[in-house]
Amino acid sequence: MKKEINQITKEWNRANPDKLHINPEEFNELLTRRFFVIPSFEIYGGVAGLYDYGPPACAIKANILDLWRRHFVNEENMLEVDCSSLTPETVFVASGHVQRFADWMVKDVVTNDCFRADKLVGEFIDTELEENSELTQEKTEEYALVKKKIDDYDGKGLDELIQKYGIKSPTTGNELSASYPFNLMFSTPIGPTGKLKGYLRPETAQGIFVNFKRLLEYNGKQMPFASAQIGQAFRNEISPRSGLLRVREFTLAEIEHFLNPDVDEHPKLDTISSIRVPFFSRENQTQGLNPVDLTIAEAMEKGWLTNKTHAYYIARVKLFMDECGVLPTAIRFRQHLANEMAHYARDCWDCELLTSYGWIEVVGIANRSCFDLENHSKYSKNELVAYESFETPTVEEFVAVEPVKQKIGKILKGDVEPVMTYLNSLTDQERLDLQKQLDETGKISFRVESIDKTIELTKDLIAFPKREKKILGRNYTPGVIEPSFGIGRIIYCLLEHSYWVRPKQEHEKEEDKIQRAVLSLPPAIAPYKVALLPIKADQDQIVKKLQQSLARYGISHRVDAGNQNIGKKYARADDIGIPFAITIDDNSVTAGTVTIRERDSCEQVIVPISDLITVLNDLIDRIKLWEDIKQAYPEQKQTASDKVGKKQVK
Amino acid sequence: MKKEINQITKEWNRANPDKLHINPEEFNELLTRRFFVIPSFEIYGGVAGLYDYGPPACAIKANILDLWRRHFVNEENMLEVDCSSLTPETVFVASGHVQRFADWMVKDVVTNDCFRADKLVGEFIDTELEENSELTQEKTEEYALVKKKIDDYDGKGLDELIQKYGIKSPTTGNELSASYPFNLMFSTPIGPTGKLKGYLRPETAQGIFVNFKRLLEYNGKQMPFASAQIGQAFRNEISPRSGLLRVREFTLAEIEHFLNPDVDEHPKLDTISSIRVPFFSRENQTQGLNPVDLTIAEAMEKGWLTNKTHAYYIARVKLFMDECGVLPTAIRFRQHLANEMAHYARDCWDCELLTSYGWIEVVGIANRSCFDLENHSKYSKNELVAYESFETPTVEEFVAVEPVKQKIGKILKGDVEPVMTYLNSLTDQERLDLQKQLDETGKISFRVESIDKTIELTKDLIAFPKREKKILGRNYTPGVIEPSFGIGRIIYCLLEHSYWVRPKQEHEKEEDKIQRAVLSLPPAIAPYKVALLPIKADQDQIVKKLQQSLARYGISHRVDAGNQNIGKKYARADDIGIPFAITIDDNSVTAGTVTIRERDSCEQVIVPISDLITVLNDLIDRIKLWEDIKQAYPEQKQTASDKVGKKQVK
Repeated sequence: MKKEINQITKEWNRANPDKLHINPEEFNELLTRRFFVIPSFEIYGGVAGLYDYGPPACAIKANILDLWRRHFVNEENMLEVDCSSLTPETVFVASGHVQRFADWMVKDVVTNDCFRADKLVGEFIDTELEENSELTQEKTEEYALVKKKIDDYDGKGLDELIQKYGIKSPTTGNELSASYPFNLMFSTPIGPTGKLKGYLRPETAQGIFVNFKRLLEYNGKQMPFASAQIGQAFRNEISPRSGLLRVREFTLAEIEHFLNPDVDEHPKLDTISSIRVPFFSRENQTQGLNPVDLTIAEAMEKGWLTNKTHAYYIARVKLFMDECGVLPTAIRFRQHLANEMAHYARDCWDCELLTSYGWIEVVGIANRSCFDLENHSKYSKNELVAYESFETPTVEEFVAVEPVKQKIGKILKGDVEPVMTYLNSLTDQERLDLQKQLDETGKISFRVESIDKTIELTKDLIAFPKREKKILGRNYTPGVIEPSFGIGRIIYCLLEHSYWVRPKQEHEKEEDKIQRAVLSLPPAIAPYKVALLPIKADQDQIVKKLQQSLARYGISHRVDAGNQNIGKKYARADDIGIPFAITIDDNSVTAGTVTIRERDSCEQVIVPISDLITVLNDLIDRIKLWEDIKQAYPEQKQTASDKVGKKQVK
Repeated sequence: MKKEINQITKEWNRANPDKLHINPEEFNELLTRRFFVIPSFEIYGGVAGLYDYGPPACAIKANILDLWRRHFVNEENMLEVDCSSLTPETVFVASGHVQRFADWMVKDVVTNDCFRADKLVGEFIDTELEENSELTQEKTEEYALVKKKIDDYDGKGLDELIQKYGIKSPTTGNELSASYPFNLMFSTPIGPTGKLKGYLRPETAQGIFVNFKRLLEYNGKQMPFASAQIGQAFRNEISPRSGLLRVREFTLAEIEHFLNPDVDEHPKLDTISSIRVPFFSRENQTQGLNPVDLTIAEAMEKGWLTNKTHAYYIARVKLFMDECGVLPTAIRFRQHLANEMAHYARDCWDCELLTSYGWIEVVGIANRSCFDLENHSKYSKNELVAYESFETPTVEEFVAVEPVKQKIGKILKGDVEPVMTYLNSLTDQERLDLQKQLDETGKISFRVESIDKTIELTKDLIAFPKREKKILGRNYTPGVIEPSFGIGRIIYCLLEHSYWVRPKQEHEKEEDKIQRAVLSLPPAIAPYKVALLPIKADQDQIVKKLQQSLARYGISHRVDAGNQNIGKKYARADDIGIPFAITIDDNSVTAGTVTIRERDSCEQVIVPISDLITVLNDLIDRIKLWEDIKQAYPEQKQTASDKVGKKQVK
């Protein structure tokens, strides 16, 4: 069944490659009705860009974060930290966010409604291209060019476009103000005086950077290493749209992998080099080509991936998304064009998923180079560096200052220190010149400004010989590879990817469509693993016993004990993505068996209660597939309860 | 060993019952050195009241939250949600936080430094009582009384005390301003216009209350039920002190249990009624008595606990704290005095833990009654109610309005509706009077203001007979029992409770004390379950294999592969609370065995690598105790590596 859906999706994608084909109204109805996600403060009319997760989405989120921790943090022994959201201004001055984390905004001059200038121009062009049938070839090309380069315009450029095209406020038709930068960070004073300016972090990364020294220490001073953080981030979007995809408060899971920028290696590279990834390189984008499936090794060979750790994480992200259950045809890794990179990034690849809104970035995998640590070193006056021991120490020649200590002290007395400081401040060449003078004339004379004296020294008092020193290592500022996961976006995309509607059966009414929705989430991600469905009211004792043993083995479940028919109960398990439904019927009492129904195929088998936990654990951990279970246990024959169930399905 | 420590602690507590006896400097040195907790933005000088968790504390936090989810959410099938921190003002107007979530603040009139007025008075009194040897009996009693009632004073009262006692700024000695209320919520505008006033939530509870209707719907309209939320909360404390115990950003785990306030029952009460809890009732506090150990049943009998669900949660919190590993002698449940309850609470019991700062609230278990749902109903104009079906419908008599429809229509024509509306608006008595008039005169006449007409009707057109109606149920506003957990405080207290220093051995130097610190955290809470300690550098292959199988079975671990001696490595595992250390030695290669060392006793056994995972899982899940393992496997005999280890311990 899942296969078929993938086939259908493939066809949809072929017909409309820029959108995932789902019915957005029916899909959103499901999200609201089953309390996956609703606008925050709904009873007060809601607030744009803020959403609450109800029980099923909250459980999915916990499962994704659990998987993330196992896949990344545990696998790579990352150092997980948990830092403040409230942040004093000085940190974001150092990181550049106070100066540069802004969008260009214009206001309706009458109502003061606010708009993003670049979005207004983009929407104007889209409408023109779609609706204006009298456009000249020249104008069409101009529009296309402007749209493509929209990220390159500054405020003045955007103002000129707004003037030129006569763009007005989209809600009222009023004139628009000149555009000005609007910083996207929420600000709030910290403490009672109101004097300490603070912000809510727009990313969790800075908490890791400012703790770099502590982390390096904790790691026994060993490089490279990665630190990770899961936490809330906040961005005061100007006009949030696209539902869950552009919100003002969201959960990020970020990794900062610190490495020596001069050493390009990763010990596990060979474990992922044959992983296939759909790459959409800068080259392909600018030449109008499609993404291509290449192995990591091939992409490195082509020069698309230039850093081995960067390449490693792209593969690991791909494997993670596969485990989450994304549609294999609806994922790609797109390289940022030069004009769209954040102010700190050297190179960046986005993992994008196809949705009904188009391709959406869910993970950004950026090479932040040494930008952050260098800036925090500068602003905090704390050296955030690591030490590198050279494998073979290098030898360096230098010109030493070698006074004859006993003698020179007697002659210079209190002036020894300033004189030595002066001589030590000279360059090697200047010292060589002094030695030459000593050799030729037997003495030197020089002026020491700090004590306002001219000093004369003879060659029995001082010498400037050539010497060698061993250099054992050096301090360096680590570079950073940062995979940054938008958890809310991943959840939303997974819901779209796993959503489908069972084909209508002859006896079913079109209106019952709502009851045929299914979320084919993988067991690891599904909000509950099992639905417990007693058919009769007097099965309380068995249900309680099953609940206890499911709880003991950590198998999350929902009981649906109402007196509705079994078909309705299956539907209610399917549409929140519960992979396995356990039906408790008369046989459960007489023969000690239950039936297990698989969500996607609707197939059922009869299993002794004594085997149930093992079978479920095997299915959930994917130790066994449904096919294996079907072969090991008898299929459920037609019974009354079964018939009702089958009505729902193919 | 743990038992001994408990014994020692008991003696400390007896000597100084208001404080846990640890050396705060050595303890804080450990927290910083091993990167449990450090001030946020340390390299920029830090910000008061903000802290970052490093890797071990972050892992402990994840373990506590995991245990919390299993103990509360899964066990009671709670509906977990995940709501916004950013909240529009209207929500906190309804909840009363805008008006009442404030402390009285005074300012130094010269420097503008801010202080909490009640804390200043309290500190002044403490100093007087401790240092002023000339206090009269009368004055001493006055001070004690003021201190006891400090929560009762409003701004005016506090100002009078400050005047009377001549209290000045503690930092400069300058005069203080009059006190004024300072709201503790962080405010930030939401959206670009700056017009929508918002706050960061000071508790997560409101997110649950505003979603009550959705939650009830999700629960199939069944009452009672509980919803839960884990998330960040923010309070702009005036002058945060006490380190980790009073902070500006913290993680709360909150449960809102909705119930019918007229039905006092809990289905699982009998499972917890014999649990013993150290109760410190309001009665005991005002009478100067000590807390007493009672069972839940006994406390209910005494009338201390007046609601069964409230009683149930107190017991469940006690069991949770036991699982977390608090010292049994350092926990109590204290009832709030009437003057210290939050504005929404009807009754409240705090779970308090003893620390070096004194007794600290870590969980508040409040009866919020119907306060929040009633207020959100009122302010949002959405009825937040549940429906109760009566077991036996009640019968109610009423006076009906029964027109003879066909006839009256012909006579009144377009006036039928307003006339019926008027008659339906009358009271039963007024209708009875009309019927009396009909019986006596055969007709009635009345004025209908809405159509400005006097209407006359004869008795063949209408009647007002007595009828009965069945009342099947009613709407009601649910009450709320709220257990609210300060996760950061629990972590801090557990660290203090589990901290001890091994007694010095003869051959050890006093300065090495730092190396003898131990955290006796239970395995479920410990940041890592296992330390992998290879003794020689060439054991990479075995270590890698062990790591892989530990990872596969989800057993978190740290490898300590440096070339320091084994004693140092044990010390480094002990002081972050790792319960089991696996030593890999020559026998690991030749005989396929490793040694397992237990942290608290330092005892070691030799275990075949093939048994290792089973043994560890049994120990971690407490299926087997260390005593069992010691009997099943040979003790480690004196070897070189062992000797070094033993030097560290008793």
